[in-house]
Amino acid sequence: MPDFSIGVDLGGTNLRIAAVSASGELLEKVTLGTKLALGRDHVIDEMCEAIQRLSRKYKATGSFLGAGIGVPGLIDLQTGMMRKAANLPGWENYPARAEIERRLSASVVLENDARVATFGEQWLGAARGVPNVAMLTLGTGIGGGIVLGGKIFHGMNGMAGEFGHVTVEPEGYPCGCGNRGCAERYASASGLVRMAREAVASGQAPSLAGAASSDAEFGAKAIYNLALQGDEPARRIFQSFGRYLGVLLAGLVNVLNLEMYVIGGGASSAWDAFAPAMFEELRERSIVYAATAPAGPLSSITLGKESAPAQTESNRERKTIITRAVLGSDAGLYGAARVSMLPR
Amino acid sequence: MPDFSIGVDLGGTNLRIAAVSASGELLEKVTLGTKLALGRDHVIDEMCEAIQRLSRKYKATGSFLGAGIGVPGLIDLQTGMMRKAANLPGWENYPARAEIERRLSASVVLENDARVATFGEQWLGAARGVPNVAMLTLGTGIGGGIVLGGKIFHGMNGMAGEFGHVTVEPEGYPCGCGNRGCAERYASASGLVRMAREAVASGQAPSLAGAASSDAEFGAKAIYNLALQGDEPARRIFQSFGRYLGVLLAGLVNVLNLEMYVIGGGASSAWDAFAPAMFEELRERSIVYAATAPAGPLSSITLGKESAPAQTESNRERKTIITRAVLGSDAGLYGAARVSMLPR
Repeated sequence: MPDFSIGVDLGGTNLRIAAVSASGELLEKVTLGTKLALGRDHVIDEMCEAIQRLSRKYKATGSFLGAGIGVPGLIDLQTGMMRKAANLPGWENYPARAEIERRLSASVVLENDARVATFGEQWLGAARGVPNVAMLTLGTGIGGGIVLGGKIFHGMNGMAGEFGHVTVEPEGYPCGCGNRGCAERYASASGLVRMAREAVASGQAPSLAGAASSDAEFGAKAIYNLALQGDEPARRIFQSFGRYLGVLLAGLVNVLNLEMYVIGGGASSAWDAFAPAMFEELRERSIVYAATAPAGPLSSITLGKESAPAQTESNRERKTIITRAVLGSDAGLYGAARVSMLPR
Repeated sequence: MPDFSIGVDLGGTNLRIAAVSASGELLEKVTLGTKLALGRDHVIDEMCEAIQRLSRKYKATGSFLGAGIGVPGLIDLQTGMMRKAANLPGWENYPARAEIERRLSASVVLENDARVATFGEQWLGAARGVPNVAMLTLGTGIGGGIVLGGKIFHGMNGMAGEFGHVTVEPEGYPCGCGNRGCAERYASASGLVRMAREAVASGQAPSLAGAASSDAEFGAKAIYNLALQGDEPARRIFQSFGRYLGVLLAGLVNVLNLEMYVIGGGASSAWDAFAPAMFEELRERSIVYAATAPAGPLSSITLGKESAPAQTESNRERKTIITRAVLGSDAGLYGAARVSMLPR
């Protein structure tokens, strides 16, 4: 039986814990609700119990290599403290890593959730075999991660990859971070809902208004369904989403010139609705993309068919690939397990 | 006598060639005009002659380690071809590196001018001893470079660091690159002149109008002098410059989380006029900067006093430093010489 690690995805809604073998096989996955109402310490107790149960079980047959935990927030890697934790009340400026290590009597890796998702896609997903890649996770907000030379690029404090709070509209919509016009106010599920509510308020979007009034959980999916049915206001919202995502990506391509950019997260399932506008902006706004974009009709790219050929030194003319994530929400579990397997 | 390299800074106006010792001593510097009117081949002839003359002279007493050439444009490192060369007519899609190597019978390194300037500041200037740093050169346009782990970060094709063409205003001023609202349309010498001409045209800037009509070479310096004298329209132009530079920097800090960002180039000498607005935007627009900014009153930072303490692993709380370049136009010469000293 194989050596293994434990990967944890601690979200605001779900707490998921998985045992993953060193070769990337998912041995077992446990999904629990994140019981925020019971308090931070209760959540940590549940998580540590699940980690211990899984690690005991698989230790019988292989070496336990460590545990990695992906959390939604800005983590200072020097101190193991979360500096921002909007969806985890009580975690801000709390010595999370030290406390978890104390309970487990083992060293753990605490990482931003989008950074480990990027690492998961690079290990086993869309960017397998691609050493240098960035990923954007389009969920309620936008998460991000950069992998260089097959390792998570942390920057100085572990904060590199905060793509969601890059300004894409200087006088734009206010963000909880204190800025205006952050990318995640536009190219995320919450951005979609905000734009839809604005369209409804304008009185120019009857179908959206109908969906919003009949559906108590009116959200990105309902807007996407209307866009698929050809509803113009819903389509325009996804064009706006794609346009701002394109502005963000164009900046990243100009700054980083990586082999690949992976688009993941729940809202990425609306790819067909936003990708054409995204690619249009990219071509217009990034001189680096214009110089390195794959050849061929735009349509074949926008349909996402151009998926992830591993680029080797022997490809002389190396191209910038923009593609969809393939591991879904498991990317973070794989990535979290993986970080604890590597030398630190 | 020491081992040495030749560094070249090939600009649209000046062609400068220097012999630099392996320890960073400037042995000799030659400045020639770049005679663009005489054609590309003439410029290459003059450059190669100067390289050969200097290398012969210093070979008598030390080993010749190689030549590095900084050029203004987008270079594909795989092919050694320039993909964009707005200020060097005839160089676009021309096999520059191969041709220069043929004439010198030696291998040379061809690099973007801002990338080598960044490397120069990292070797001997503002970022000496700081392994991870980005630099912005504010000249006619904006150049950029990233050094990671003490090496130029090239990205996939050598195009990483194109900060000047990052969008800072989606519906902004058109740029020669085909985009709208590129950073270099605002936070550069040409951006200053454009904003000043717009202020003059509005009829609300009498002092700028006077300077523009009396000075055939009306430029950034004249606008700066008026700002220093307290002229409100001139001051507002520098605030706008600082604001857009702040938007760009805030994005870079969120994406890269580096130890240091160095601001160089001719227009950086107006630091006092634009830095307060730049820091204000940075604090508001970058959650990473907000979490890692040095303590102390904003004024001491904006005055640029916070210059470059080398950050070591023992500094537990590592801070983001934004500071001015110190090597002036020699940064590119040092950096170009340095790239040819390193293993490739």
